[in-house]
Amino acid sequence: MTIQERINNWVRQNQNNGIQLLKKLIGEESVRGNEQKAQAVIIEKCRELGLTLDIFDIDVNEVKDHEFFSCDRKDFQDQPNVVAIWKGSGGGKSIILNSHIDVVPEGDRSNWTNPPFSPEIINGKCYGRGTTDMKGGTVSLLLAIEALKHLQIRLKGDVIFQSVIEEESGGTGTLATVLRGYKADGALIPEPTNLKLFPKQQGSMWFRIKVKGKSAHGGTRYEGVSAIEKAYKVIESLEELEKTRNDRISDPLYNGIPIPVPINIGKIYGGEWPSSVPDLVSVEGRIGVAPSEQGDKVKKELREKIDALGEDDSWFKKNPPELEWFGGHWQSSDLPEGHELLLALTSSYQDMLHTQPIIQASPWGTDGGILWKAGHIPVVIFGPGTTEVAHDSDEYIELENMFQCAEVYAQMLVKWCGISTEH
Amino acid sequence: MTIQERINNWVRQNQNNGIQLLKKLIGEESVRGNEQKAQAVIIEKCRELGLTLDIFDIDVNEVKDHEFFSCDRKDFQDQPNVVAIWKGSGGGKSIILNSHIDVVPEGDRSNWTNPPFSPEIINGKCYGRGTTDMKGGTVSLLLAIEALKHLQIRLKGDVIFQSVIEEESGGTGTLATVLRGYKADGALIPEPTNLKLFPKQQGSMWFRIKVKGKSAHGGTRYEGVSAIEKAYKVIESLEELEKTRNDRISDPLYNGIPIPVPINIGKIYGGEWPSSVPDLVSVEGRIGVAPSEQGDKVKKELREKIDALGEDDSWFKKNPPELEWFGGHWQSSDLPEGHELLLALTSSYQDMLHTQPIIQASPWGTDGGILWKAGHIPVVIFGPGTTEVAHDSDEYIELENMFQCAEVYAQMLVKWCGISTEH
Repeated sequence: MTIQERINNWVRQNQNNGIQLLKKLIGEESVRGNEQKAQAVIIEKCRELGLTLDIFDIDVNEVKDHEFFSCDRKDFQDQPNVVAIWKGSGGGKSIILNSHIDVVPEGDRSNWTNPPFSPEIINGKCYGRGTTDMKGGTVSLLLAIEALKHLQIRLKGDVIFQSVIEEESGGTGTLATVLRGYKADGALIPEPTNLKLFPKQQGSMWFRIKVKGKSAHGGTRYEGVSAIEKAYKVIESLEELEKTRNDRISDPLYNGIPIPVPINIGKIYGGEWPSSVPDLVSVEGRIGVAPSEQGDKVKKELREKIDALGEDDSWFKKNPPELEWFGGHWQSSDLPEGHELLLALTSSYQDMLHTQPIIQASPWGTDGGILWKAGHIPVVIFGPGTTEVAHDSDEYIELENMFQCAEVYAQMLVKWCGISTEH
Repeated sequence: MTIQERINNWVRQNQNNGIQLLKKLIGEESVRGNEQKAQAVIIEKCRELGLTLDIFDIDVNEVKDHEFFSCDRKDFQDQPNVVAIWKGSGGGKSIILNSHIDVVPEGDRSNWTNPPFSPEIINGKCYGRGTTDMKGGTVSLLLAIEALKHLQIRLKGDVIFQSVIEEESGGTGTLATVLRGYKADGALIPEPTNLKLFPKQQGSMWFRIKVKGKSAHGGTRYEGVSAIEKAYKVIESLEELEKTRNDRISDPLYNGIPIPVPINIGKIYGGEWPSSVPDLVSVEGRIGVAPSEQGDKVKKELREKIDALGEDDSWFKKNPPELEWFGGHWQSSDLPEGHELLLALTSSYQDMLHTQPIIQASPWGTDGGILWKAGHIPVVIFGPGTTEVAHDSDEYIELENMFQCAEVYAQMLVKWCGISTEH
């Protein structure tokens, strides 16, 4: 039997290991600030696999001055990062397998058919918050390591598995691994690409815009200026900016993507009293940054668009909306064309799945931006799960895709790190 | 000296009493649930005036089944209503002087030039939350009583001064006074009419509309449906409804008022994460009800308008916005034309201010609706302060207007209740 066949057989015979691990991980509600229990599941699994563990709380003083630090969380205590190392015998290329444990909030629970943190398997899909983004990918990585361990394959290069916190809020977890000294010849991140390969990824930044109004009694609302109405003007102007920005994009890796670098308004809040005209509304959103763009220029472009509102609106002229950049700022990444990391993954994909992979630029940022820009580590994003259901209610993962990825990852480790003949 | 002259003299010589009382009342931040300390100021003043006090906590069980009860507050303990009675010698008409002690929240503090609960007097205006709505009017009422007491005028009819809680949230404070048995031949409420007389008043109701979207990752926002975008469609449709409703109004008391019965959107909130497409946005607002309208028909009209969104929007068809009526529901009031209460107030106004008052319908509801519909007490609204600044930042009252009203109220008590010759 070839190694590919042995990997394939082992994964197929041990699917239940993966399913049980996934269910355990989904059951732990690892929203921001509550990552500990899901990390405990990871730690238990890594111990079982005989990996060398480095479990550490992020010290805010060690990350806060880094140029890519962008985070409004000040305390990471007891919510550790986990790094688990499978030391190679030497002489091979090393790889970082980076996966985040944090999940976004579940949204309105009434939109979920089943409770978001009680995983259910229906017709080959496992449902729950974090199945696609990205605990399914984490399971694929760990299954790949488990397969090689059980098949008694010894690698030459080091495998550095990282289960990090804070990806959804700006990447401080991964930044901390870089600053702790973790490096490798390449990195793979199993974010939900729906089995596409993403050698380039979009960056993104969070903004908050505060829009002023003039309060008045609702019974004479014509004496006030509604900050809700004014916020809508701001949102319309952001829609125009999104169009302008996307019309400029010509990278063929974005072919067929409706809006390559979207501006998303994710949150709105303002006003305090039904009978008062609201005098302050805040909107929070995310702007996508193309791999070729500089974050500072994008910030300037958005500021100018908002300032332009004052040109034909005297209220905005006197009361320009406040713009803040806060929380997450994901760096883009840009693997050079023809890089050996992409070639190795492409051929591993072909070996195991017997088709050509689709290669695109990602519609979102990942921690790959931090690995690339802060760690200078070549990165490729490839994983099970689909963006359509990430961050949505009734998020799910196709279990078959999770197993396919496990097989490709195992083969990738064999190809990239090399097999040792020592025992 | 005529009584009018004696009243005028006393008020002019004792303006400082009124200013000190106003400052004390503004200094107590009597937002909902925190009315106690401002009521203590009222109680102290009423004791000083020798009025008979009835200080009582509202028992929710005694009000909750009344048809005009509309309140989401379940506990009124230690935040009392205050009723202070100046018993007449008999044979005159009685009057309720009703004023509310609660104030709306101060909004964004950065919009205030001075802190909202630290009153400042600048150029004859006293600034602070509640100056206009309606602690200034409360001071006018108490000054009027103080003037008559000091002038040793004895009235025939009873004067029932009421300092109630909960006006801003639906009138439960005043409803409790009615259910406790307080009645009178007429009632006067010193809400900020800018010295106009309002024999009719608009009712109003609060609504909450929940608008659904479909969540998705912000990087592929085109795979979701933004509840923020959909909420704006709802708001636009409410603007249309406002227009339709106001085009129907022909009451001459509304002449010159830009929007007689406005629909105000006071609050918006939704979305949880800048990088997610929001799947739920709520808007809260107030709809004005004309004196001639039935609340139930207004509710139906709003429901139908929202349902109509589904006619040409398949998202709304599948996901009709939820509509709730909550919190405040202010009743309208409608004093019959030529009523003696309005005639007495009009002539008192002429006696003291030597001009004709402007008579209109009010742009908002007051507790007068409860007195009228639940207590069957004829009501007129007339007070210092202006709607423009009520509920706004830098709310203020012209002190001169506060004293003018005190004079008119004193004269009104003399005319309405009659003077006793007993001592």
